[in-house]
Formats: sequence, C-alpha cells, structure tokens
Amino acid sequence: MQKRVIILGATGSIGISATNCIRRFPEKFKIVGMSTYGNIELLEKLIKEFNPEAICIGNETKAEEEKRKFSHNLAVFNGDSGLEKLVNEMDFDILLNALVGAVGLRATVAALNKKKKVALANKESLVIGGEYINKILKEKGGELIPVDSEHSAIMQCLNGRDIKDVSSIILTASGGPFRILELEKYKNIKPQDALNHPTWNMGKKITIDCATLVNKGFEVIEAHYLFGISYDKLRVLIHPQSIVHSMVEFHDGAILAQMGIPDMELPIQYALSYPQRLPIAGKRLNLAQLEKLSFFEPDFKRFPCLKLTIDAGKTGGTMPVVLNAANEIAVDAFLNNKISFNMIGELIKIACDEHTPVFADSLEIIERIDLETRKKVLARIIN
Amino acid sequence: MQKRVIILGATGSIGISATNCIRRFPEKFKIVGMSTYGNIELLEKLIKEFNPEAICIGNETKAEEEKRKFSHNLAVFNGDSGLEKLVNEMDFDILLNALVGAVGLRATVAALNKKKKVALANKESLVIGGEYINKILKEKGGELIPVDSEHSAIMQCLNGRDIKDVSSIILTASGGPFRILELEKYKNIKPQDALNHPTWNMGKKITIDCATLVNKGFEVIEAHYLFGISYDKLRVLIHPQSIVHSMVEFHDGAILAQMGIPDMELPIQYALSYPQRLPIAGKRLNLAQLEKLSFFEPDFKRFPCLKLTIDAGKTGGTMPVVLNAANEIAVDAFLNNKISFNMIGELIKIACDEHTPVFADSLEIIERIDLETRKKVLARIIN
Repeated sequence: MQKRVIILGATGSIGISATNCIRRFPEKFKIVGMSTYGNIELLEKLIKEFNPEAICIGNETKAEEEKRKFSHNLAVFNGDSGLEKLVNEMDFDILLNALVGAVGLRATVAALNKKKKVALANKESLVIGGEYINKILKEKGGELIPVDSEHSAIMQCLNGRDIKDVSSIILTASGGPFRILELEKYKNIKPQDALNHPTWNMGKKITIDCATLVNKGFEVIEAHYLFGISYDKLRVLIHPQSIVHSMVEFHDGAILAQMGIPDMELPIQYALSYPQRLPIAGKRLNLAQLEKLSFFEPDFKRFPCLKLTIDAGKTGGTMPVVLNAANEIAVDAFLNNKISFNMIGELIKIACDEHTPVFADSLEIIERIDLETRKKVLARIIN
Repeated sequence: MQKRVIILGATGSIGISATNCIRRFPEKFKIVGMSTYGNIELLEKLIKEFNPEAICIGNETKAEEEKRKFSHNLAVFNGDSGLEKLVNEMDFDILLNALVGAVGLRATVAALNKKKKVALANKESLVIGGEYINKILKEKGGELIPVDSEHSAIMQCLNGRDIKDVSSIILTASGGPFRILELEKYKNIKPQDALNHPTWNMGKKITIDCATLVNKGFEVIEAHYLFGISYDKLRVLIHPQSIVHSMVEFHDGAILAQMGIPDMELPIQYALSYPQRLPIAGKRLNLAQLEKLSFFEPDFKRFPCLKLTIDAGKTGGTMPVVLNAANEIAVDAFLNNKISFNMIGELIKIACDEHTPVFADSLEIIERIDLETRKKVLARIIN
C-alpha cells in the first residue's frame, strides 16, 4: 500500500533527501502535502513532479504573492499556522517534520493528535515539547520515528529490545569544525568557518548547532524522550569520522552500533519505510578503506553549550524551551554577523540563569515562554 | 523456569566460562550433565559444586580408572560414544556443545533430533555436518544458537531481521599472532609462539586455528549454515583490536556491529539465556580509552589456509570434512613438534586436492571420510 506523506520543510536539506528516496519508490509513497518557508522556485518544481494535494508557504508575504501561480486543485496554506492547518486538514499516513526550530512543534502535535506517524527531523519538537508530546503519545497514540542519524541508529540497535536491558546509550558527535581549534581563536570564528562541517552536509542552523554542540545536547534530550531512558544513562562520545552513528550498551556489556557513510538519505528513507527496510544502491561504507575509528570524551570547557543544553534537559519543564529560544535567536544573529561565536553560549547561559522553570505541559505555556525568551535575547543583542 | 543444561567439554575454556555464568544465576540454570576428555580433577570439583545427574569421560582408560570415585547416583558414560549416549538419555533443555573437533558432531545431531536447543561452540559440527544438520533442523526442529563471539554478534545484529535485507555479513578476525610477521619467518614458528594469541584466551587447538586463520574459514562456513546466507555475501575483515565482533550490512548500506571486550562469557551467557539477556557486572568496553579501531582486507598469501577453508566450504559436500580432518591431525602434529607451522596448510592442501567430494548427507559418510582422511594425513606425517 502506498503511504501518503506530508513533508514539512520540503525544500531544505532533509526535505530534498526525502524526495530523492520517494522518487525511487513511487509505488511505496505518495507526497500529499509539502511546505517551504520561501524557496518557491524549488517548491514549484516539486509540485510539478510529485503533484501534491496541498502546500504551505511559511513566509506569508511570499505566499500572498505566489498564490496565483498554483492551480485551483492545490490547497495553499500559509504562515506558521498554515503548517498546523495543513496537517489537520489533510489525509495522510506519515508526516516528515523537517522544519527548523520551535515552529515545528505544533505540526508534530497535530499529527500525533490524529494518531499518525511522525518521522521527526525537527528535534526542537522534543527538546521544547518532550513532556507534552509524551503525554499525547500516551493518551492518544501516534508514533514518533526518529530521522536524526543518531536516533535512527539507536532505534536500529534497540530493534524492539527492552530498554530495561540497556545500561547506556552512546550518542556520537563529530565534534564539528572546531574540535581541535585553539580556544583563544573561538572568538574570531566567522559564519563561513562554522558552516564548514567536516563530515555532514546540512542546513545552516543545524550546522551552527553542530559547531557549538548545542545540537548534540538537543539529541541527548531527544533520546531521553524517544527511548524513555534517564539522563544518567545517556553519554556523548566525540567520533570525528562520523561512521558510527550511535551505540547502545546492554547490561551484559554488549554494545550494538549502527554504522554507515554520513548520508542522511539512509535514516530518512528508513524512517519513511519503517518497519520495512528498503534498498539504497551504491554509496557503501568500506571499512578497510577508512582511516581508523577513534572515540574521545567530549571537552565541556571547549563546548560549554553542550553542558548547558544537557543541564537544561535535566532541569526539564520550560528550561529547554528557554535554551532553545535563546539559541535560535543567537544562531540567527551569529549567521548575520551581529554577534561573535562565543556569544551564542553566553546568551544561552544568561537566558537560562534568569529563568525559573515551570511545567511545560501545554502548548500555550511553551509558546509564551518561547516568545518571551526570544524578545529578551533579541533586546540583549540589539542593546 | 530453570533451564536444564548439559555442558560437553565442561573443563575446557568455554566450559569453564559457562560454569562462571551458571554460578551467577542458580535460579536460571541447572547443570544436569557434563563431560571432560581427561581433566578428572576439575570435573570432580564441578560435580561437587553443581551436582549433575550424569557425566561423560572421553578418555576411556581414565574413565575406567576413575569410575569408582563417583557416587552411585551419578550416571557415568565414557568414550566418544558416551557423549552421544549422555545426550540421548538425559532430560535437558539446552546442550552447550563445547567439544573440540569432529567428535562434537554426533552430540549436536542427537540434541537436535530430540528437538532441543544447542548452544554451539563446536563449530566443526557445522563445518563437517552443515548440510546434514540443516536437514535435521528442517525435518525435526530443534534450534542452533551460536556461541562463537562472531556468530553471536551476527545473531544480535540480525535480531530476527529478514536475511533477504542483508547485503553482506562481515566476520572480523584479529589476524592472530602472525599478522605482521615477515613471511620467511613462518617456517620457524614454534607452538608456544602460535599459542600466544594477541586478544583472546582460548583452548590450544582453536588458538592454532586462529594463527592459521583456518578458524576464520570455519566461521565463514558456520555463518553460511547458521544464517542461510550465500558465500558471496560473506566477507572477512582483519580487525586487530578484537572489539567489533562482527557486522551485518543491510541493503540500504546500514551496518550493524556488535562490540565488546574480548571475553567469551558474554556470548556464552547470551547463548544460554537467549532470547533473554542477563546482566554481567564489571568488565566494560570504554571506547574513549581504546586505541583506534582499524580494519584491513585479509592477505590470502599470508594466510593460505583461510582461502583453502573457504574454498572447501564453497565446494561443499565432503570437502570440508576432509579439510577439517587434515587440519585436526596437522594441528595436533604441530603442537607436538612433529611438523612445521607451514606444513599445516600444505597437508590440508594435499588432502583436499586428492579428494573428490560426494554429498555429506549422512553421519556414516561424514565419519568414514573423516577417518580415511585422518589415516592418510597421519601416514603422510609419519613417512
């Protein structure tokens, strides 16, 4: 049976890889909805090729301008609220949520409320809404399938095994482009340096998050919620080659690891086809032709954001909401040359320090704290 | 429920590790039968501790001498035929077959004929009797659970997944003690050099098989029968650190690997408790404290026995029977300083070259070819 797929963030890095997978298996998947923030040109191409039933354009001004381009058979939504509406109104089997940032939360929630599968690339959904989402999963159903290569690896290693037999989950991290940079040079890092990831090709925001290791902290929080594992059993190891995508250690000392070339098509396709595993031709890992695989403990002095993020996760409640909002504003400011690389962590720290967390048990609370934090951090950058 | 366990080869390396596991879980396992070839001293200790219902002493002279030592409540079998009788007559749930060599085949067959589980450390059972054993498994039932760290790793990576989704199985090999020895020095290798394995502590015979890589060839054959995978999908990679115990590559390029410290207690315990996974305290792999992990293609010039063994497996029928018998005699002669290290491979090659294989579809054929080969190889050594 053909799965009806919605891709939110269809013109981003994950979205494009997803369309590559779907193109290979037209008998397996049918794209029924897609969104872009503002890449109308690519969206038009995708509409032509995949003939979806609905689209959403995140940028409302653009949406208004471009609306007349599309045929009457195509439902056109717009703005952040349009993402949620599209999910609510369309008939689908699986939502690939590849949005960037907190804006992805409502779409995830909407899909789970409809008891649907969500292939989750938007990790911020779980970072800021983990408690709330787990409540929905428990009460309503639906299913979260990870798209991150790390969590896909963990899911493959667990493969339905009892989490009680797990003694630790080890998330690997490439360490980003600044793993061995002299500490005093961090303040001079330019956006183009940070966007030069050594092993993975990704979107801009997540690439900066990889350079600060905020992304790895997010993944720790994500793993905590996805696999129901306590923070004391979650470890991060620096693994510069990005070949081992993550590992699960069991209580008898056995470690299962998932490996592969650093290419997002694999976890994306697996998330879409799960529990089935579809073939991908070419692109094979040849261990005998690789440099040696190495693993290191992360240096929290070098990567203060990693500790800040994990600590926010451990604190729980609205603390990760604050951390994420501060990070989104700071990363955007860094990419626009408004602040230095080191300021990202400093802004996050100040925001978290002055926040007193409360339960994050409704969308309203999450979104209010998110908005308040954005305003505060933005004001701090401008002043 | 307590599992009733027979351990054949109880006083060997695998047997001792198995008793360590069982000692930790007296509520899970009850040893009902055990065998030794001739280590009566250790056997007496084990009888005292585990109070089995039956024993077998392989060395018939010793059995006769020692018989009066044991209480009347203990059934005492002796000789090679006693191993099979013990399995046939005892009531048990799982047989741990940790015998060395072709002598293990009849015990495996007897247990499977009783539709029991066999935790198989005696890889020669499958090397020489793979076709016959698969026929029994199909017709009668029973279950084979691998004990080798490599096949245990593969089983854990597969975890019930469809073998049709597998593009290759990669068996890792430490490469043994002579991985980087100058080729001209091979002829001077002494038994004590070959017994000095870099990463694993094992019995003498298998340690020599590891030095020649006959053992890895055996494991390729074993994997072929255990997992129903064709030889063209079976690969060997040299991995000197013995941390990655083996790997499975799926048709989307994902590789699952099982890792751990090189300690047989893990796969032995897992085989006994399977499908449950019981804890083992202490002894953890710490990847951050390890040397880098490396992988190489095996050098068939350096290790001619590896190719000979795999080729015998591919030929099938009675060819692996001949190879195994020649190897057993040659290794014994090498350990007793009767032949050089290089002669092991030469004797194997001659034996295989002069054999015309037939179907190995009965115990009688297998045992006749086995005996004939032993005589021929022995005559060649003496003359």
